[in-house]
Amino acid sequence: MIVALNKPVSTSYSWRVADVREQLKQLIKDVPDFPKEGIVFKDLTPVFLDPVATQAMTRVFADRFHALQVDAIAAIESRGFLIGAPVAAALGVPLALVRKPGKLPRRTIRRSYALEYGEDTLEMHTDAVASGQRVVIVDDLLATGGTANATVELIREAGAEVVEAAFMVELSFLNGRGRLAADVHALVQY
Amino acid sequence: MIVALNKPVSTSYSWRVADVREQLKQLIKDVPDFPKEGIVFKDLTPVFLDPVATQAMTRVFADRFHALQVDAIAAIESRGFLIGAPVAAALGVPLALVRKPGKLPRRTIRRSYALEYGEDTLEMHTDAVASGQRVVIVDDLLATGGTANATVELIREAGAEVVEAAFMVELSFLNGRGRLAADVHALVQY
Repeated sequence: MIVALNKPVSTSYSWRVADVREQLKQLIKDVPDFPKEGIVFKDLTPVFLDPVATQAMTRVFADRFHALQVDAIAAIESRGFLIGAPVAAALGVPLALVRKPGKLPRRTIRRSYALEYGEDTLEMHTDAVASGQRVVIVDDLLATGGTANATVELIREAGAEVVEAAFMVELSFLNGRGRLAADVHALVQY
Repeated sequence: MIVALNKPVSTSYSWRVADVREQLKQLIKDVPDFPKEGIVFKDLTPVFLDPVATQAMTRVFADRFHALQVDAIAAIESRGFLIGAPVAAALGVPLALVRKPGKLPRRTIRRSYALEYGEDTLEMHTDAVASGQRVVIVDDLLATGGTANATVELIREAGAEVVEAAFMVELSFLNGRGRLAADVHALVQY
């Protein structure tokens, strides 16, 4: 017999959320001129090297999504997997994978979105989310919102409801939030 | 104050490991002729859609690595993130990211490995693992072992010890195990 682990307790963690935000901000590092000159890259890898920070972040997201009565999490390849997988496990809900084209072996739906030059595409298995499910989209960072918006459209095409798109980091100055056709939640904002 | 969640309890889960194996085998689906004719692809996405299976798998890996006194987990992009991230959070150890080239913003070490045609490269930040750390490499599936072996070399170049390379699935007939310069552990074998 395999039994489910405990679901997160749905009490108030507001004190903890503020602490987690602070901890994340201390860990996230600016890397100038990456991937090209003039861009300041937010390096999130130190967060994943800190187990206390990742555990706290996982718990904060899981508690939030529990309160929002979320049925499933859709994680965007590949850094969204780093947050979506532990949160789905903590919450005890399915993890739907949104991947780059050509990776998913069965029947998919797909959406293309504009890049600075050209376009890119995301795919999801047609059976990854079920009709009527309340789904949260998870990724590490919200920039201009191209991948997140493509994912919103994929979830809705599959007949599910997008509760919100949730991120560890939001780059507010790029206004992805204003372009996203769904509610946005971010733990840390720049 | 942020406090760490409980570490896994290190009692015997042998009964559970057998159950988890069975559960995973029931979830993993064969997809013929993907990515090309004549190849039978193991589709692991149904595992991630099943929270009880992913929770159990996470617990089984975390307990094993706890017993092996593992200091850190190195996860290989991108499907290795799906297992490495929740296991690192459950175990309370750092998660080092092994990524495709050009993704990591700070100083990296890199290893190339042969593909059927041409070659590919993996990168890791120089500070992702520390000298002397006992590191487990995690990925979803062991095929011919190219990416896993490149990762073994990266971990050792960084001065850390490779305890083992651990996978949800091993395709034994491709003999990745025989080619890997490290111990191999797999939950499910074909």
